[in-house]
Amino acid sequence: MQNFTFQNGTKIIFGKDQEQLVGQEAAQYGKKLLLHYGGGSIKESGLYDRVVQAVLEQGIEIIELGGVQPNPRVSLVREGVTLCKEHNIDFILAIGGGSVIDSAKAIAAGANYDGDVWDFFTGKSPVTDCLPIGVVLTIPAAGSESSAGSVITNEEGDYKRAVGHGTMRPKFAILNPVLTYTLPSYQTACGITDMMAHILERYFTNEKNVELTDRLCEATLKTIINNAHTVIEDPTNYAARAEIMWAGTLAHNDLLNTGRIGDWGSHDIEHEVSGIYDIAHGAGLAIIFPAWMKYVYKHDVNRFVQFANRVWDVEIDLNDLEKTALAGIKETEQFFSSIGMPITLAEANVGEEHFEEMAKKGTERGPLGNFIKLQEDDVFEIYQLAK
Amino acid sequence: MQNFTFQNGTKIIFGKDQEQLVGQEAAQYGKKLLLHYGGGSIKESGLYDRVVQAVLEQGIEIIELGGVQPNPRVSLVREGVTLCKEHNIDFILAIGGGSVIDSAKAIAAGANYDGDVWDFFTGKSPVTDCLPIGVVLTIPAAGSESSAGSVITNEEGDYKRAVGHGTMRPKFAILNPVLTYTLPSYQTACGITDMMAHILERYFTNEKNVELTDRLCEATLKTIINNAHTVIEDPTNYAARAEIMWAGTLAHNDLLNTGRIGDWGSHDIEHEVSGIYDIAHGAGLAIIFPAWMKYVYKHDVNRFVQFANRVWDVEIDLNDLEKTALAGIKETEQFFSSIGMPITLAEANVGEEHFEEMAKKGTERGPLGNFIKLQEDDVFEIYQLAK
Repeated sequence: MQNFTFQNGTKIIFGKDQEQLVGQEAAQYGKKLLLHYGGGSIKESGLYDRVVQAVLEQGIEIIELGGVQPNPRVSLVREGVTLCKEHNIDFILAIGGGSVIDSAKAIAAGANYDGDVWDFFTGKSPVTDCLPIGVVLTIPAAGSESSAGSVITNEEGDYKRAVGHGTMRPKFAILNPVLTYTLPSYQTACGITDMMAHILERYFTNEKNVELTDRLCEATLKTIINNAHTVIEDPTNYAARAEIMWAGTLAHNDLLNTGRIGDWGSHDIEHEVSGIYDIAHGAGLAIIFPAWMKYVYKHDVNRFVQFANRVWDVEIDLNDLEKTALAGIKETEQFFSSIGMPITLAEANVGEEHFEEMAKKGTERGPLGNFIKLQEDDVFEIYQLAK
Repeated sequence: MQNFTFQNGTKIIFGKDQEQLVGQEAAQYGKKLLLHYGGGSIKESGLYDRVVQAVLEQGIEIIELGGVQPNPRVSLVREGVTLCKEHNIDFILAIGGGSVIDSAKAIAAGANYDGDVWDFFTGKSPVTDCLPIGVVLTIPAAGSESSAGSVITNEEGDYKRAVGHGTMRPKFAILNPVLTYTLPSYQTACGITDMMAHILERYFTNEKNVELTDRLCEATLKTIINNAHTVIEDPTNYAARAEIMWAGTLAHNDLLNTGRIGDWGSHDIEHEVSGIYDIAHGAGLAIIFPAWMKYVYKHDVNRFVQFANRVWDVEIDLNDLEKTALAGIKETEQFFSSIGMPITLAEANVGEEHFEEMAKKGTERGPLGNFIKLQEDDVFEIYQLAK
């Protein structure tokens, strides 16, 4: 087990009707907030009105910036930064899923910085200070509601890049499973895939003696798998929606990473795809992760056997461990397919035309992943396995 | 799943040599600290010198209060409160296990209060404000290093009482598994029992639809069980010591309680025993918890079957679920015995003479537990089952 520091102070406020508390939580951080959100769904559902009312009741002034798209764009982040500076914003309230929250985090970092906010994502400048952020979560998927990271796409060149800093972690996150009832099943499935991928990235490590975090990862994966079909077939099942929502946060709040070094190759490989093609991140992961698994499993067959056995209840064939490992990969792939995810690039209408370019761009800052360090050629091969 | 709020901002600094960071962490909270500890073991091991040096290097002034005993006494807490007030202490640094940390928390609460600190434990006054606390943990057991609670014994009347408040949660906790190498095996086993009991108290709930926390509890229990004999037989095994130490913190950091209501009857029933007899809390729990299980399992046989199956790998006998449930209880009892714990009051030299008194005192503020509400008669019966 590696030495580690773990601190996650995000206040999780979980359950029915909890968004009514957003005003009093926000009031702790100032008198002027930027309300950041995506499209019109929160207005149609009435959530927007409830949040605005709760905030106004606390005498807080609201400046608004909607229009966040999936794979959030740096252009909108720059607009947000300008608004924060113009209006002396104290606090950013994000209503939405990972894209909105990531966009809010980037704005929060840029608001106290004189240069261009994209500098954080190229590594030109470190994040040092952020405006405080709060979240009303509507899509359980990215785990951004209590993570310290943000992923933003720069549409000039189709770059999708991540940055993380402790001050970017939201101060509070309100999680009401009822708000997820209206998610289309495809989006629910993308979220499920994303949260599973967050755990899998941590699970496939070279670190030995990480039994507790292995078992916590397996526990969270099994819970997600066990509730996935329920939320898709019975979208207003509170109990199952609640399990999925809380699991999505735990999948990415850093606890499951303690004492170990995760991989994150599949995320980076997928980012190149969704940077160009604008497919949902979760759908991209459903395609890339099994391909990555097939490419790397021989590096540590035993870890893949443990995964197959403990997560998918595959019986261990001691005379053919590779067969057991491959059965676990097959189960993963079939599960993604069973919840409506594409499992090949072809299914997602992604052709081979950019494989070389994506492999090159993905590795231009160095090899990807940690389980195995993937060079440009390796990434190209993984795209081939995924096609 | 119940609505819940979860926030635990304790900074965990985990691993080899991490106590060298104590000075710079403490320096964030002021220039004058109360160093609180137990007996001489930290001086013999050299830990005391290393901590004092790291603190002095930051220009922090140290006032000392040693002498914390197991089942920490309110008399020493009162001394600590007086010292804090006299010296205008900014910060309390606890070096030790749960007793020292609990004592530090009580002092921290009392330092900003005009009345007697015992008022918090009788419910006469709520905790409102505490001095900040930091911890260098030497005994993985109580989980007090990131919990918001404190248990103190009032030697006038042998009362052992608990209080909890968010401001009592330590700001940081340094966990170096190497510091636990020298623990006697009996103390190691008491710690293991205590952390398992913390999970079991949460596991036996009437709340339905708590799959994620059930599985996280089971994952943590399995890890503890799987490493327990290793740390007892091979006390300098870093990997196993690390698993146990981190599990002990997670067992009691409130995560495993999210969305559910725990029981805590066994803890209260045990507190009456160790309030009078001064046996180790862990040893008391090894006796009381199986007795409690035998008394209550029929209330929800299925939950005990799940426990037997998932934690102890007992095969489910669908034709005799009670048999399966009882097999899980038997495994629990045998496990405690296998690590050197007493499993009857007689083994701990506790006779029947105070059963009535303990049952009466334990329930004088109301029935105990939540899984089943235990009245005085029930508690008496549990002592009978444990004798």
